[in-house]
Amino acid sequence: MSIEEKYIPGLDGVIASETKISFLDTVQGEIVIKGYDLIKLSQTREYLDIVHLLLEDRLPNVEEKVAVNNKLKQAYQIPNGVFEVFRNLPHETHPMDGLRTGISSLAGYDDKLEDRSLKVNKERAYNLLSSVPNIVANSYRIIRKMEPVQPKEELSYSANFFYMLTGKYPSPLEEKIFDLSLVLYSEHEMPNSTFTARVIASTQSDLYGALTGAVASLKGSLHGGANEAVMYMLNKAGSVAAFEENLYKKLYNKEKIMGFGHRVYMKKMDPRALMMKNALKDLCEKEGNDLLLQMCEAGEKIMESEKGLFPNLDYYAAPVYWMLGIPISLYTPIFFSSRTVGLCAHVIEQHENNRLFRPRVLYTGERHSLPN
Amino acid sequence: MSIEEKYIPGLDGVIASETKISFLDTVQGEIVIKGYDLIKLSQTREYLDIVHLLLEDRLPNVEEKVAVNNKLKQAYQIPNGVFEVFRNLPHETHPMDGLRTGISSLAGYDDKLEDRSLKVNKERAYNLLSSVPNIVANSYRIIRKMEPVQPKEELSYSANFFYMLTGKYPSPLEEKIFDLSLVLYSEHEMPNSTFTARVIASTQSDLYGALTGAVASLKGSLHGGANEAVMYMLNKAGSVAAFEENLYKKLYNKEKIMGFGHRVYMKKMDPRALMMKNALKDLCEKEGNDLLLQMCEAGEKIMESEKGLFPNLDYYAAPVYWMLGIPISLYTPIFFSSRTVGLCAHVIEQHENNRLFRPRVLYTGERHSLPN
Repeated sequence: MSIEEKYIPGLDGVIASETKISFLDTVQGEIVIKGYDLIKLSQTREYLDIVHLLLEDRLPNVEEKVAVNNKLKQAYQIPNGVFEVFRNLPHETHPMDGLRTGISSLAGYDDKLEDRSLKVNKERAYNLLSSVPNIVANSYRIIRKMEPVQPKEELSYSANFFYMLTGKYPSPLEEKIFDLSLVLYSEHEMPNSTFTARVIASTQSDLYGALTGAVASLKGSLHGGANEAVMYMLNKAGSVAAFEENLYKKLYNKEKIMGFGHRVYMKKMDPRALMMKNALKDLCEKEGNDLLLQMCEAGEKIMESEKGLFPNLDYYAAPVYWMLGIPISLYTPIFFSSRTVGLCAHVIEQHENNRLFRPRVLYTGERHSLPN
Repeated sequence: MSIEEKYIPGLDGVIASETKISFLDTVQGEIVIKGYDLIKLSQTREYLDIVHLLLEDRLPNVEEKVAVNNKLKQAYQIPNGVFEVFRNLPHETHPMDGLRTGISSLAGYDDKLEDRSLKVNKERAYNLLSSVPNIVANSYRIIRKMEPVQPKEELSYSANFFYMLTGKYPSPLEEKIFDLSLVLYSEHEMPNSTFTARVIASTQSDLYGALTGAVASLKGSLHGGANEAVMYMLNKAGSVAAFEENLYKKLYNKEKIMGFGHRVYMKKMDPRALMMKNALKDLCEKEGNDLLLQMCEAGEKIMESEKGLFPNLDYYAAPVYWMLGIPISLYTPIFFSSRTVGLCAHVIEQHENNRLFRPRVLYTGERHSLPN
């Protein structure tokens, strides 16, 4: 049997792309982003540094970072027609479906849609980074019959996004922690959504199509949907004892428990989760209420001793977003918004050095003949 | 180096899924659909037979086929809100982008969206088979400021689709050939769009999301967009001599020529292309004008002798659709509409026996360290 003929479900461990963007180095325990350790980056840099790093291949100096900020602010507004699309979606539309429809509809406004050159793709990526927070916040609001919220150009990129999501200006601690969450979610090698975007882009389809597919992927409960599932689980319990009880019950019934384990890490805690856990501690201290931290730590202990599983980023991002006052059904759209920069970098890389994805199947069905 | 560590660009030849749906048997030269040879099916069966075969696992008897037809007719209408979404897309929106946005917006109307059971997924698939032709025709019309066209329930499924696309009732020959094209496009193992749909569905995301991603994939010029590219090439030439000249020029300039070659067949003509070539002959005979056939045959000869490449389905579907009076920019949306049944079958199969797609990468970038 040749290498091509061995079937590996889920392409587990199979190398699907060459990339200069990122890599989960499980040996050295690093999430490598354009050569740097993401955790170290997150301790000294902000989301706009990561944006510059991913799209321009290097960390920005002070002037360059200001320039990125200004460039993004210039495109905060989205066409009114996109708002009208949201007004015509049914009230029951899931926020990820509103986001997906919004990004899909944006394509019609791009007058260089057929141009996939590096230069135009990069401009398109910056425009999407400006638009997506607006789409996330206002698709949610308009579908729920609320008035749209206008971006505030005097705020930083992250503070503006926070304001559009919650309607309030963040405190310095809230702004710092929200920005940190965007840094941690920004890029992460080849999860399903990034793979989806590259597969789509490999037909020479455009960035809007690739991102639309990535939203669809991230919506799934086995992917981005996990952060929301964690928060519903925490809220349903409401106390440490009840949370422990619910976890044991799920374990007994062999139900999947969201927020734990990751195909690539597995043997230790996702280092991004640890950063968010520390942020949760800071928020709890500020609030004088550490119930969520206690619940999460109790769950962490149970899952380690019973299943040998460790928390992933979603497990600690969920209570952090809750304490920041963000509606639960926006957690996955925020994950997408942060990941937009990583997705754009992957689509650009795919367009620059393309080979159409077209795998084969292992046919296990029957064979019949038809009368001639 | 272990099997997982070998990088194969585009996953060329790599087995990505087990499936009981279809298989390109290059040894026996058969496109196997649920055990049957697609070419033989296309000689005796119609599109609704293939729909039943793909969704119910066997060919229908007469009563079952009538029942499928009736079921599909009951859901021909799409929500008015979807029309309103189309009214709010910019006039420049590409038909595939209109289709993508339309399917994405449909999700909000599904009151069982979280239910991915086999039963509900199949009902959803039938509903999509009813809706997609309407979305294809009316997104195109409304975005171009034309009045929407209403489905005609007295017509067959294919005749109604033809009517909605062209505004005229098909002749018996036109209906037969249009239906044949839907049969030939219905399912084809694991092209990029089907792979996209399965990758998305593997996160437990829903059928609308998976199909939205598949539209994005099929739009690409290296995939479904090829049939439109062929027709523009034929129209631009306008004569056999000019077409030959243009092909030689493209060959000389090492430009990619659409409509030829296929990663899996390669060494012979796509048997579906031969069926469409025969249909083109019938249409040319009826019209008393065989210019397009002559041009296509001349191109076929050049590409075989110069490059050893053979026509694929897109090469002969394009002039057939042209002679049926269908606007060129609807060719890829029609391909998608026909493939909807195959895509639904794959998403259902993925949901029934799932493993999240999550491959790895080969990191070829640099490594840097940051000051602590």
